Amino acid sequence: MKKSLIALAALATAGFASAQSSVTVFGVVDTAFQRVSRDAVGSDVTTNRLAAGASKTSRLGFRGVEDLGNGLKANFWLEAGISSDDGAGGSTRIATNNQATPAAVGGAGQGLTFNRRATVGLSGGFGEIRIGRDSVVGLLTQESFDPFEANGVGSQRQVVYANVAAVSTSISSVRASNLIGYFSPNIAGFTADFGYALNENASNAGVTKDNGRLITARLNYTLGAFNAKVGGTQIDYNTGDYQEFTVGASYDFGIVKPALAFHSNKIKGVNKTDVIIASLTAPVGPGLIRAAYTRADQKQGGNNDGNIFAIGYIYNLSKRTQLYTTYAVSDNKNGSTLYQVGGSPGAAAANGRTNGLDIGVTHAF
Amino acid sequence: MKKSLIALAALATAGFASAQSSVTVFGVVDTAFQRVSRDAVGSDVTTNRLAAGASKTSRLGFRGVEDLGNGLKANFWLEAGISSDDGAGGSTRIATNNQATPAAVGGAGQGLTFNRRATVGLSGGFGEIRIGRDSVVGLLTQESFDPFEANGVGSQRQVVYANVAAVSTSISSVRASNLIGYFSPNIAGFTADFGYALNENASNAGVTKDNGRLITARLNYTLGAFNAKVGGTQIDYNTGDYQEFTVGASYDFGIVKPALAFHSNKIKGVNKTDVIIASLTAPVGPGLIRAAYTRADQKQGGNNDGNIFAIGYIYNLSKRTQLYTTYAVSDNKNGSTLYQVGGSPGAAAANGRTNGLDIGVTHAF
Amino acid sequence: MKKSLIALAALATAGFASAQSSVTVFGVVDTAFQRVSRDAVGSDVTTNRLAAGASKTSRLGFRGVEDLGNGLKANFWLEAGISSDDGAGGSTRIATNNQATPAAVGGAGQGLTFNRRATVGLSGGFGEIRIGRDSVVGLLTQESFDPFEANGVGSQRQVVYANVAAVSTSISSVRASNLIGYFSPNIAGFTADFGYALNENASNAGVTKDNGRLITARLNYTLGAFNAKVGGTQIDYNTGDYQEFTVGASYDFGIVKPALAFHSNKIKGVNKTDVIIASLTAPVGPGLIRAAYTRADQKQGGNNDGNIFAIGYIYNLSKRTQLYTTYAVSDNKNGSTLYQVGGSPGAAAANGRTNGLDIGVTHAF
Repeated sequence: MKKSLIALAALATAGFASAQSSVTVFGVVDTAFQRVSRDAVGSDVTTNRLAAGASKTSRLGFRGVEDLGNGLKANFWLEAGISSDDGAGGSTRIATNNQATPAAVGGAGQGLTFNRRATVGLSGGFGEIRIGRDSVVGLLTQESFDPFEANGVGSQRQVVYANVAAVSTSISSVRASNLIGYFSPNIAGFTADFGYALNENASNAGVTKDNGRLITARLNYTLGAFNAKVGGTQIDYNTGDYQEFTVGASYDFGIVKPALAFHSNKIKGVNKTDVIIASLTAPVGPGLIRAAYTRADQKQGGNNDGNIFAIGYIYNLSKRTQLYTTYAVSDNKNGSTLYQVGGSPGAAAANGRTNGLDIGVTHAF
Repeated sequence: MKKSLIALAALATAGFASAQSSVTVFGVVDTAFQRVSRDAVGSDVTTNRLAAGASKTSRLGFRGVEDLGNGLKANFWLEAGISSDDGAGGSTRIATNNQATPAAVGGAGQGLTFNRRATVGLSGGFGEIRIGRDSVVGLLTQESFDPFEANGVGSQRQVVYANVAAVSTSISSVRASNLIGYFSPNIAGFTADFGYALNENASNAGVTKDNGRLITARLNYTLGAFNAKVGGTQIDYNTGDYQEFTVGASYDFGIVKPALAFHSNKIKGVNKTDVIIASLTAPVGPGLIRAAYTRADQKQGGNNDGNIFAIGYIYNLSKRTQLYTTYAVSDNKNGSTLYQVGGSPGAAAANGRTNGLDIGVTHAF
Repeated sequence: MKKSLIALAALATAGFASAQSSVTVFGVVDTAFQRVSRDAVGSDVTTNRLAAGASKTSRLGFRGVEDLGNGLKANFWLEAGISSDDGAGGSTRIATNNQATPAAVGGAGQGLTFNRRATVGLSGGFGEIRIGRDSVVGLLTQESFDPFEANGVGSQRQVVYANVAAVSTSISSVRASNLIGYFSPNIAGFTADFGYALNENASNAGVTKDNGRLITARLNYTLGAFNAKVGGTQIDYNTGDYQEFTVGASYDFGIVKPALAFHSNKIKGVNKTDVIIASLTAPVGPGLIRAAYTRADQKQGGNNDGNIFAIGYIYNLSKRTQLYTTYAVSDNKNGSTLYQVGGSPGAAAANGRTNGLDIGVTHAF
């Protein structure tokens, strides 16, 4: 305590400019009118709402970088998700994919919670080492092929993980706590990223010893307008270990940037789903068209197939502020009811359809 | 995700000064010694405590405005209430007047919660459109005639809404989530503000379909030292829709500014109360005297009448820092026990009296 | 509400530089790899994890000072603990030593919570008066003799309060809510600090009337390289009032700074423990060696004796960034199982041993 206060005091006496230059407050407030509909017996069921983060996730964060000399830098990053439609914050008790929700209500996840990222890191010629709560690079690989960034009615994630989510909603979260991450420097166009999340169980915990252990890796290659990525993740659980991998590529022709990815996920002994994600973005006028089609084909543990198609336009009012709209439609096949557009319209009828519309504004600061 | 990070990176490279000029960190820390007493059989019961926000609500916020050119501006505002006496934060699960508290404990309202305001807006010659969690302009109309701003022992709100709160503590909150607001420009001294909060229920939800829908409006007129306001709000519930309106005026004579308002609220089929609020503020020395008298007269569903009188002084140490004291006394009539001063002294005896004293400091930043 | 907004608007129009100079955003992100082991029948049990704040507590805060003229200053300080390993925030519902946890789940302690400190203060020639949630100076006295600052595996606190914590984990928290604090100016090397936390119970609450009342004091004396401190705290509870005091001294020889303290705590009618804390710090190279030995001797209510020894090194990468490692070992005597190193390795076997290792990074901003 005492030492820390002294350190801070020293920092303070260095002058305001210096003290404040070490922290950047940043964020996004993204709020949309959202209309989602689903099939129902007799007639469609529609819900209108305000939705947060339908284009970019609403968030507030604090970050900074310190130059330590000799090319070495220290950094920190604290980032919290916020529900800009109702002011609510995000909890780490939800969406932690490598540990179950704590039994104790009111324990972790309250107070000043940075559920999106809470890391300290050191970077230099060797790359970067970063520890804390962070994104899982292997799971991000899938998301990087979704032009809707897993947000709003157009979120391709809804279809990619529908079978997984039917078993457990926490598996496949793109974030993990207690993560040690390594990010390589760029070598001839290649970067390689690794992550290991500690399971934190006692060595005599028997079957639960490895519960929550997460291993992830991503390889990225860029040559001019061409980019390719491959990523994989394994998470150990008491029962039903989880595995996924994604491979895909994009090419930026300038007027249009198409991308294609193959993804597969499985909960061992429970289910396995293969997924194709095809997307494109195209700069048109003062904005960007984005479109994506994703098809999921369950290979094991059932035959719940489905797809989603989404198209939208982002209109740039400035570098920081955008208006946008997205329309999405999702269909079920082989009797499935699992697939739906983002925004939780509710389960469709068997082989049923859901659709959704977002009209919103994104403001970054 | 990816795009968002790119956008933020672009912002960051625009230089520190630019990045930081887009965010203002602001707040108030207001903490007081508070002594409240109530009638009890045999003797009075007194409680001494530290209280937060007894003059201005303690809060921390982040806000910014971006000039988009052509008179158009984008803005965001994230504001959280804080209990400066015990460090606790405010939850959106409490005090959301247009939806019931979610059943799931630990769901919404945790983490980095901005329970007072979470909005993104666009403003220009047409006025301002603002969406998210915000104040309800019709309910604010009542509060604007309370020189104690609904804070501390002198809060006139305690008497205005005593009958409503006896039925439901969430109705009559001055904030709502999922709110679309419009604020007009000033036209010949008039401004008009409207708000609509989406109920977000499925179209086949039967009786609960409209539950939580809120409509509110406020008209404001200023001519020199004269100001008049009228505001109304309707909230739909499964049972017992809520309605209120307020009309009032003030005149600033320079040495004293008296105000008078009439307010009426009702829960349909349950109760109805008419309220008179008379107040004055007067700059005296390096500060401000404030006084208010409010009388509530229940017209339907019972005959619980009562009143509150409060007087206090704010002493300005600077533009940002104030010392203050407030004394308040509240009486019940016709056998009522509902009316009391701010600070929850506990129910008075039938026809009983409560009183309270605040001595505190307000510091804005 | 209205006045507050006006005040903020006035502040805002005073210009950005002025507005922002009133707030300093500060914090620490400290995350470590932590390995803790304990005796078990047959073999040792080991847990590996990421741990937050193993050297300095991870935190985020907002503070400012305003010069009021004539030597008078106003200040505010809002500081929240953060779990930098998993992003979780700290709750005020936990670790409030002068009131029991509220019965209502989801009440206080959620949202934007500043569990470490939430104060507003005035300072001048008379010293400083500070109110809100703050550290308890008498309890801090003990912590000031722990070179590991009650953090990580080397936390001496684990042994100092082991008997108290076996009865109640909230007693002996170094923070209290609703605290009125006075800090004297330096007079001939002496400073004296006092604190009183209001119990906030109704005057007719019978046996619970005084529940939660806390009185604390600390006297500090510095003469050149010599420093001595004495501090004491009393907390009233419905049953089992708590008392503790600490007296100790240090001398900074330049190459090494040894310190010695005696501490005693008791829950009246339940237990009493005497404690000796011996420590040293020594600047070596671009860093600091720290070592401490603490021995607890239960005098009443049992004979659970134990000790902890910890040694570590802090390596300064810069004024703001440090690498560190700590090793600690704790032993139990007379059949005790209560004593252990920081990081909760789990109860040792009777007379058993626990040990722990931290390797981490601290980054202040």
